[in-house]
Amino acid sequence: MASQNQLFLGTFVHSKALDELEYLHNAAVCVDTSGTIVAVERECDEAKAKETLLPRLGWDVTEVEVVRAKKGQFFFPGFIDTHLHAPQYPNIGIFGKSTLLDWLNTYTFPLEASLSDPARARQVYTRVIRKTLSHGTTCAAYYATIDVPSTNLLADLCLAAGQRALVGRVCMDQYSPDYYRDASPESALADTRESIAHIRRADPSMSLVRPIITPRFAISCSVPLMRQLGQLAAETQLPIQTHISENETEIRTVRELFPPSATGAQDDSYAGLYDAMGLLTHRTVLAHAVHLTEGEAALVAARKAKISHCPCSNSALTSGAARVRWLLDRGIVCGLGTDMSGGFSPSILAAARHAVLVSRHRAMGCYSSSEEGEREKLSVEEVLFLATRGGAEVVGLEKKVGGFEVGMEWDAQLVGLGMVDEEGKVSEQDGGGDVDVFGWQGWEDMVPKWMYNGDDRNTKKVWVKGRLVHERK
Amino acid sequence: MASQNQLFLGTFVHSKALDELEYLHNAAVCVDTSGTIVAVERECDEAKAKETLLPRLGWDVTEVEVVRAKKGQFFFPGFIDTHLHAPQYPNIGIFGKSTLLDWLNTYTFPLEASLSDPARARQVYTRVIRKTLSHGTTCAAYYATIDVPSTNLLADLCLAAGQRALVGRVCMDQYSPDYYRDASPESALADTRESIAHIRRADPSMSLVRPIITPRFAISCSVPLMRQLGQLAAETQLPIQTHISENETEIRTVRELFPPSATGAQDDSYAGLYDAMGLLTHRTVLAHAVHLTEGEAALVAARKAKISHCPCSNSALTSGAARVRWLLDRGIVCGLGTDMSGGFSPSILAAARHAVLVSRHRAMGCYSSSEEGEREKLSVEEVLFLATRGGAEVVGLEKKVGGFEVGMEWDAQLVGLGMVDEEGKVSEQDGGGDVDVFGWQGWEDMVPKWMYNGDDRNTKKVWVKGRLVHERK
Repeated sequence: MASQNQLFLGTFVHSKALDELEYLHNAAVCVDTSGTIVAVERECDEAKAKETLLPRLGWDVTEVEVVRAKKGQFFFPGFIDTHLHAPQYPNIGIFGKSTLLDWLNTYTFPLEASLSDPARARQVYTRVIRKTLSHGTTCAAYYATIDVPSTNLLADLCLAAGQRALVGRVCMDQYSPDYYRDASPESALADTRESIAHIRRADPSMSLVRPIITPRFAISCSVPLMRQLGQLAAETQLPIQTHISENETEIRTVRELFPPSATGAQDDSYAGLYDAMGLLTHRTVLAHAVHLTEGEAALVAARKAKISHCPCSNSALTSGAARVRWLLDRGIVCGLGTDMSGGFSPSILAAARHAVLVSRHRAMGCYSSSEEGEREKLSVEEVLFLATRGGAEVVGLEKKVGGFEVGMEWDAQLVGLGMVDEEGKVSEQDGGGDVDVFGWQGWEDMVPKWMYNGDDRNTKKVWVKGRLVHERK
Repeated sequence: MASQNQLFLGTFVHSKALDELEYLHNAAVCVDTSGTIVAVERECDEAKAKETLLPRLGWDVTEVEVVRAKKGQFFFPGFIDTHLHAPQYPNIGIFGKSTLLDWLNTYTFPLEASLSDPARARQVYTRVIRKTLSHGTTCAAYYATIDVPSTNLLADLCLAAGQRALVGRVCMDQYSPDYYRDASPESALADTRESIAHIRRADPSMSLVRPIITPRFAISCSVPLMRQLGQLAAETQLPIQTHISENETEIRTVRELFPPSATGAQDDSYAGLYDAMGLLTHRTVLAHAVHLTEGEAALVAARKAKISHCPCSNSALTSGAARVRWLLDRGIVCGLGTDMSGGFSPSILAAARHAVLVSRHRAMGCYSSSEEGEREKLSVEEVLFLATRGGAEVVGLEKKVGGFEVGMEWDAQLVGLGMVDEEGKVSEQDGGGDVDVFGWQGWEDMVPKWMYNGDDRNTKKVWVKGRLVHERK
């Protein structure tokens, strides 16, 4: 929590609708000590705010901390990373030419298993939290590992660093290496309950960190395990996260491993399996969903389950190009995930950029009409919506974060771009980033420029629930 | 030129073959005052270098400048950007949902035309040279504009900044806006000759900057203009750069505008047209080549023309995913281009990364066998070859730059990655970048990590022809 009431002044940019950004220029936003936005005032400079706005709130002007966006800077909602594996962070950028299943065995499981060493877990988790915060990620849905103490440590570190997080102890009791597998459904359940209890003790109001039930994916979970996790979700009303339909070999394997005769599912689809296990709920985050069938999409939509689109991983692991437009057309809520380390970047801004590019590769596919291909394209506005409002809804926080509205909490980033002077230079203070803005360019150019070339250097400050959690030196 | 002989010590990484990087650890490279590499010595630390290597060269140890790569750092050849439009730099990241031809009219031509203002040209060109140098681009094949003075200024600025460059005054006498078009083939030729003469005066030995004949692309050039530029190339033995087969509408337009009956070409193909105009030579750099036919590829290969692959632009402009493996299989030399601002990034490292990703989208296409798709994938090693040795051959400098060999010139960058300590921190000195390396990771992990997440922060120093031309503060 912030120790003082805060007044933010300048330009605020956030999503008004899927395809529309709203620009609030010369505006004022007031955030109280609980981190809640209590006023959003247009056409309100510092003098006016102090004369009329703060008194109206009953705030003592001398005790308010004022934060001003300078020329070329704007406030933007914090990013929501709806899918990432914290223990895999050291492996980002390491793939060889592998695809999903061999990549898991070659690179991923050995690294995850090694994080049962508390010192290594502390090192890696400390780094991944710092790194994602520095990229403006104010909320992250983390997969940890099967190890309870280090999963709990991840939650503790998020809480200490002030990052909003969903933290899941990973469940996997079959088709995984002997050295990295739950011994039984019962032990997986007990370990999951233990981790949930720890996280609830650490943040009883779940105001910042909450547990999330995490069956890794169908292949690595037995039917009894999935069923019991589904029951646990019903009992606790906790969210669920898992993977679905990322890769064709994976989908074939799921079909072979889980015939409807053995599961009671209504068909042999991947989504149908999860549904039969009680895992397809309105609190479920499904990562990838690249190859869903029409029937599966209808089921996902009916259950109001949410989808985390992970474009960097789609491309890097050659999984396929997810049909985001098709999902959105079916009323399915989507957000963005970095999917580290299936994705190579810790940045949701990079995920947004790559979502634009992957959508263009979809548009270059074969369609019966060029209009059909054209519709596949996601715009800058749309991917920034997915990165904020969309992600917030995916993790069930759409009333709390994702935009600048009275009653929401102040999860935000201050973004600064490099303003090129007449000699072709950018001052060190403004710059140090890779986004150059020229004097004749306006806001409608600046935000796309940020989306296409921005990085953590442009994220000058980051707040969660009103607390300053990252500042770029 | 460097004022002193130089001794570089540490790890050197460069391409040995298309799919193989060579790591020279604990090595020494000596560069004389002309910028030429005179020794590459393996297993040679500083003491040994001073005791045996420098005396062997007849160098006075006290007068040699020593540059050491620290832990986590390595020397890598400078990048070659084989295709970019310097005047378009301010527009990177600005596309809307346009594709090639409407993008040219909406965004590109107005900006290019505005650079006839010398102050704006100086501002933009200064910035683009600084920016590309900071990303490790030691050599760039620039398109300027139709304006002669500002084209000449670009060459002068490259020379002053020490960037190796090919600089082309753009020719376009048809199907372009009235406000931005050559008045006639004759005036285009005269202006081109004027710019060539200027650049030759500025760098008589062409040791750093050289002119390049630049018909924009077929659509915007009349047959007489293309013929005369072909003759000029034959007369001067200068290189040529142009675009080919980027976008399907463009290709259809070329076919309609230039029937073989009017050109004397052997068929109605895009490559056939350039060939008939005398523009398809072993010194020609063809940007894009996304949709070449088998027959065109055979013609390009026969003429030994080179191709600049611009993956960021392929995706961003929805042009198509170039078939790099297919081109390489046909013996065609390829390099990488940023294609700013059709591409969104000033970085060849980003182009290399995106070349990997675009190749994966090709691999996800429809093939009769999975092996066929698999072959489409470009590896980290391959794209780094394209970024250095490949690019050098594309611009005709393969004997001079692209690798660390005796007799080549020292066009190089010092790359540094962030080494994560046990507390999960990276020291400011090493870091400030986005690439985190953990203690247990070796060189075979570090280079891919750099390729996937590196940026200009990792490029600590840049040299061209032995001269330090960029240093990161």
